[in-house]
Amino acid sequence: MNAAGRRLVAELAGTGLLVAVVVGSGIAAARLTADGALRLLVSAVVTALGLAVLILVFAPASGAHFNPVVTAADWVLARRTPARYAPGLAVAVMGCQVAGAVGGAALADAMFAVPVLAASRTRRGGGPVLLGEAVATAGLLLLIVTLARTGRTQHAAWSVGAWIGAAYWFTSSTSFANPAVTIGRTLTPTYAGIAPASAPAFIAAEILGGGLGVLLAVAVHPARQDRVSDAEPARLAG
Amino acid sequence: MNAAGRRLVAELAGTGLLVAVVVGSGIAAARLTADGALRLLVSAVVTALGLAVLILVFAPASGAHFNPVVTAADWVLARRTPARYAPGLAVAVMGCQVAGAVGGAALADAMFAVPVLAASRTRRGGGPVLLGEAVATAGLLLLIVTLARTGRTQHAAWSVGAWIGAAYWFTSSTSFANPAVTIGRTLTPTYAGIAPASAPAFIAAEILGGGLGVLLAVAVHPARQDRVSDAEPARLAG
Amino acid sequence: MNAAGRRLVAELAGTGLLVAVVVGSGIAAARLTADGALRLLVSAVVTALGLAVLILVFAPASGAHFNPVVTAADWVLARRTPARYAPGLAVAVMGCQVAGAVGGAALADAMFAVPVLAASRTRRGGGPVLLGEAVATAGLLLLIVTLARTGRTQHAAWSVGAWIGAAYWFTSSTSFANPAVTIGRTLTPTYAGIAPASAPAFIAAEILGGGLGVLLAVAVHPARQDRVSDAEPARLAG
Amino acid sequence: MNAAGRRLVAELAGTGLLVAVVVGSGIAAARLTADGALRLLVSAVVTALGLAVLILVFAPASGAHFNPVVTAADWVLARRTPARYAPGLAVAVMGCQVAGAVGGAALADAMFAVPVLAASRTRRGGGPVLLGEAVATAGLLLLIVTLARTGRTQHAAWSVGAWIGAAYWFTSSTSFANPAVTIGRTLTPTYAGIAPASAPAFIAAEILGGGLGVLLAVAVHPARQDRVSDAEPARLAG
Repeated sequence: MNAAGRRLVAELAGTGLLVAVVVGSGIAAARLTADGALRLLVSAVVTALGLAVLILVFAPASGAHFNPVVTAADWVLARRTPARYAPGLAVAVMGCQVAGAVGGAALADAMFAVPVLAASRTRRGGGPVLLGEAVATAGLLLLIVTLARTGRTQHAAWSVGAWIGAAYWFTSSTSFANPAVTIGRTLTPTYAGIAPASAPAFIAAEILGGGLGVLLAVAVHPARQDRVSDAEPARLAG
Repeated sequence: MNAAGRRLVAELAGTGLLVAVVVGSGIAAARLTADGALRLLVSAVVTALGLAVLILVFAPASGAHFNPVVTAADWVLARRTPARYAPGLAVAVMGCQVAGAVGGAALADAMFAVPVLAASRTRRGGGPVLLGEAVATAGLLLLIVTLARTGRTQHAAWSVGAWIGAAYWFTSSTSFANPAVTIGRTLTPTYAGIAPASAPAFIAAEILGGGLGVLLAVAVHPARQDRVSDAEPARLAG
Repeated sequence: MNAAGRRLVAELAGTGLLVAVVVGSGIAAARLTADGALRLLVSAVVTALGLAVLILVFAPASGAHFNPVVTAADWVLARRTPARYAPGLAVAVMGCQVAGAVGGAALADAMFAVPVLAASRTRRGGGPVLLGEAVATAGLLLLIVTLARTGRTQHAAWSVGAWIGAAYWFTSSTSFANPAVTIGRTLTPTYAGIAPASAPAFIAAEILGGGLGVLLAVAVHPARQDRVSDAEPARLAG
Repeated sequence: MNAAGRRLVAELAGTGLLVAVVVGSGIAAARLTADGALRLLVSAVVTALGLAVLILVFAPASGAHFNPVVTAADWVLARRTPARYAPGLAVAVMGCQVAGAVGGAALADAMFAVPVLAASRTRRGGGPVLLGEAVATAGLLLLIVTLARTGRTQHAAWSVGAWIGAAYWFTSSTSFANPAVTIGRTLTPTYAGIAPASAPAFIAAEILGGGLGVLLAVAVHPARQDRVSDAEPARLAG
């Protein structure tokens, strides 16, 4: 398998396992307690740990984006550097992320004997919630782009996990912050699900918030190539 | 944007996001459970994770103080070193911290559809609580100044988060430990709020405790310039 | 004691303490709360922390496998390298892991005044649960083999702990992911136990899943000897 | 202040703050919830975080022992090395640890408006509990001595915190694992207290377990001076 093939496999498997972590832990938590805070605490802690591990595993092969907003930012920021790549590759990566997310939701449902690929009926939305979703994604992109521009991507795994775990709580949307994961979560009739009709507004908020996060990161941290560590690939890890 | 401008933006955005994390997670926790310990556990864990990430993000641009007591200590300790800076800059940094904190409280309230910039009615205070607040802040400054003086600021992000998370519990004040954050929290009628009338005594305890923490750090760790790592800016990270 | 002897002692003691952590925390959690989610959260957090520490402690002496699937993968992957070793040593290591696991279960039961070496009556199994067990073990081997092949075994301790802690929740089997630990857990009549009749299918799922994890790791990360760090032993840590 | 003076101050302040963390978080947890598992989970998490931070803070000045068993092991293991020191200094360190522990219990009680220096009435003991206490302390010393002998004391802070946090749960004694902390905890009439009459057996179990832990560490990890990192002081951190 060549490098592009490995990258696609890594994004497919990584995003799939990430959604399996999110959906599976939600099912287990909802079965084991009626306390809403304990359910969300479990989801947040488990997602933070699982995401951190998956970034560690797949970062060398693909940068461990698992997220179309991250891939889009990566492609844009890499355009004028030696790390640039074809737009077709970016699109293929995003396709693998979405396919992986759908597969991961199905895997989680299968593990817990829940009907596979059934649509969620959990409506989510409204102005405050979409504001929360934008804030969560802005923070995520701010973090990832900052680490890349300051040559500290070795911190990506644990800090990205920590940010998402925190944003499950401090934003009102519980921080999906990822269009591929959002699509995958439309296809599970469980705790972590989101009704398909609610997804487009979530995705729009994620794109908008992500763009703002990139702008803030670029404003605060002018690029300094010399600070890019060579212990990690030049593309974004996260 | 020049370095001073980036520093001010970083302190504004960082303190704002910190208060959004504190206030937002408090609102979510109070809505989802009636168990007081679970509410505070969520607040502590989410604040610890969020604060650690924000320090990682903003440390290269501003030292990630987010706290007037930290900035004051930094200014005093930097006076006779090549890293000294004008008192006006320190004051501007503190102003951005306070403005960011107010904005962050408003952002959290907006995300959760709570009236924005309404005053808190939660009275906090009394001798034991103020003692707790002084202890929390003393420990924070002891930690930050020690890491700076021993050339180990690479530990600042996770350890400052861990300290504040622990201090939410082991002090009776739940560890505000930050005058800017205290002011921001006067302007939210939610779980994390503090009545404006209670704020001055809290801030006084923070200043007193912070001073004691600096003195202890200086006594135990005589300055050794040669141990300052050049992987981080010379000013305090925290 | 020579290196092989130290390796066997390390695997015996490490696997024993690991099972003591798993079984002991389960007993304490089941005694202290009736909430099923809180019980599993405690088990997951305590296992993650304890496992990470035990890997740190025993990695220099034995690679800290604590798991026959990991030892089998290590032996196979090391065959054609300078780190190869006799199959008899691998078998001895696995024997020590099983003996340690049984001893660890007894130690935990003794600490909590529970009858020692009594069989569990907790039946676990069924297709979805066995799928979960395979997924948990696949992820574990994917992680460990990837870290070894990319020269980043310094991340093994915390990330292996984090993966197992997450997999307690997002898989339906609560992630035993280890044949030796599974055998040890047949001999405790407590929260973490598994009926002896349920163990063979669990172990089969672990072997199958582990094999898939190794294949995925090898496909995504072609071996690069030059990236193997010499700060850690060449064999797998985990 | 000379190096010995700084060491004594560090051990006094560090042990004091450690006991304040343990006692204070116990008071807060017991006030905020009736769920026994949630109380112990809070204590474990807060102690793990607080202990890790205190080790980071005081390790450069004193090795951050905070524990007479650790100091005794350090003194014995350092005897025939260039880092050896007078027995009188070791005794003075232990005295400061005990004094700090008593002060820390009083500080926590004062912060929470509880009578200061009142004796605990919580009886703890019995064979299984004392076995648990010995196991907890054995693991602690195994960890600390192993890190020192393998030149990896940079891991001490977080791993010692993690071990104690885990041992709160998987041992039946809730892991005091420290004679100074045990003495301090006799003087608080709160959740973390232990009746003075129960302390001697606890301390005996700690000394016995600690000795076993040292022996295991020495057996598994023969000393290799060349692996001692010079990024940390040669004495034990923990």
